[in-house]
Amino acid sequence: MESIRVFAPATVANVTCGFDILGFAVDRPGDELVLRKNENGRLRIVRITGDGGALPTEIGRNTCGVVLTKFMEQTGIGKGLDVELNKKMPLGSGLGSSAASAVAAAFAANELFGRPLTLEQLLPITMEAERMACGAAHADNVAPGLYGGFVLVRSYEPLDVVKLPVSESLFASIVHPHIEVKTKDAREILRREIYLRDAVKQSGNVAGLVAGLLLSDYGLIGRSMHDYIVEPIRAILIPGYDDVKAAAIQNGALGAGISGSGPSLFALSPSESLAFKAGEGMRAVYLGMDIQCDLYISKINLEGPRILD
Amino acid sequence: MESIRVFAPATVANVTCGFDILGFAVDRPGDELVLRKNENGRLRIVRITGDGGALPTEIGRNTCGVVLTKFMEQTGIGKGLDVELNKKMPLGSGLGSSAASAVAAAFAANELFGRPLTLEQLLPITMEAERMACGAAHADNVAPGLYGGFVLVRSYEPLDVVKLPVSESLFASIVHPHIEVKTKDAREILRREIYLRDAVKQSGNVAGLVAGLLLSDYGLIGRSMHDYIVEPIRAILIPGYDDVKAAAIQNGALGAGISGSGPSLFALSPSESLAFKAGEGMRAVYLGMDIQCDLYISKINLEGPRILD
Repeated sequence: MESIRVFAPATVANVTCGFDILGFAVDRPGDELVLRKNENGRLRIVRITGDGGALPTEIGRNTCGVVLTKFMEQTGIGKGLDVELNKKMPLGSGLGSSAASAVAAAFAANELFGRPLTLEQLLPITMEAERMACGAAHADNVAPGLYGGFVLVRSYEPLDVVKLPVSESLFASIVHPHIEVKTKDAREILRREIYLRDAVKQSGNVAGLVAGLLLSDYGLIGRSMHDYIVEPIRAILIPGYDDVKAAAIQNGALGAGISGSGPSLFALSPSESLAFKAGEGMRAVYLGMDIQCDLYISKINLEGPRILD
Repeated sequence: MESIRVFAPATVANVTCGFDILGFAVDRPGDELVLRKNENGRLRIVRITGDGGALPTEIGRNTCGVVLTKFMEQTGIGKGLDVELNKKMPLGSGLGSSAASAVAAAFAANELFGRPLTLEQLLPITMEAERMACGAAHADNVAPGLYGGFVLVRSYEPLDVVKLPVSESLFASIVHPHIEVKTKDAREILRREIYLRDAVKQSGNVAGLVAGLLLSDYGLIGRSMHDYIVEPIRAILIPGYDDVKAAAIQNGALGAGISGSGPSLFALSPSESLAFKAGEGMRAVYLGMDIQCDLYISKINLEGPRILD
């Protein structure tokens, strides 16, 4: 095989009460990436298309570049590679854009060279790209992106990532309003100390959400999708937060919240038709505020990245 | 039916990272209670035996008395009742002694009068007894006591209690050292504010523990049974805490922690034989410290209270 074209999915991290520990992958949007062996023995980002115009092509500053460098260091194979990235998702949207590119590169290289590494070995490589892109080697986008489905990042030291088997009938509705929220700002406004009583309420919801997902108990999922700690603060940065969330639930979603550090908002629904209904309700709020937005409806992507051709 | 004799189980609340939200019931120790219709139309605590010598027989100050009063108010039946409580478990041990009596009384009355109330209706009644006995209407002992098994108290307002289906091969080892830890002290030494980063680590473990229990993933259960918030503080009140915990794990337990607010310590093991081994290891630590202790080995009680005759 001389080249490969892959898709890697956008991801929703944080998932209401699951701040920093829960994320899931969707089927759209996502990144497409072509990886092609070249003769000159160099790693090159040769083209970035789609929404990725603002991304650097310099190897050390590009998530794909960082991933492929690490991949080659670790395996000793694949020196000469050309990368084409077709970024089919907005940057800075809270949908794990850097993670999607990192996962696409890691998955593509591994498939192109006959799977020298396991998913567990690829994960830390993609986390290094997140460190370069976001300043922290967080796993709550790359892990669901790479593994697919709903993923729990139980611990970082040691790294312990658990794929949670969830129902195939869960659908996500995601609205991406065209406003800017910087991840750095979204992190800096958080309080470093919180009330124990809020942490206990949050724990109850985390436990409820995980149990609801594993038992396919949609009522429990919905009752548990509340964040007492992070969203009440971050919501300040996202106009329409309360109304969009209310619109999702009024239209049949189980619950809703901020995707990553925003500005995108997501909802979970127990069927595709309800996900469409909830999504339209969410979009209508932004249209009423004269804020442009993208709407994505997708089942939970249970497989992770995939080969296109 | 003129009388009934029931058993209600001891319970382990808090369950490491599950502070205030997780609890489970065991098969021993527990309370036995006889409820007998009388002719004089009064509610009387006629006898308390076993370890219950210090308990008041005055209706308003006795957990059984509070429960039966509430039960009669709510159902309008059963005015004349004699209660005999055989308390077969230590008071102030962290094993949910007041909860066991409350559950025994609620269950006995409900069975004696043909189940006029559902478990969901009995639960708030037993919580009222906890309010009288402990100053707070907490549910993390009475809920597992009443429902059996592993129970999540997801929320108090509104009350939302979820029974988690867990494997029948989980066994608990409980040591009760003969030292005194007052629940009030154990609560007062907790910090009201905690670090967000600790809350996130705790959330990861709560999610991992719930997932491990529901997936019967014993490795995950073990990796998740760590408390970053409450046990590091409460451990100060319990001599031998670190050594007992280490002994449990060295002897094959998945994990260990403080039962309720202590001083009892519990471990979970994936088989009865390992639970015995872990329990002996735990007891040996206290014997080495010249502290007397009781040891209980029990499967998780999946049924809750039961009729004896």
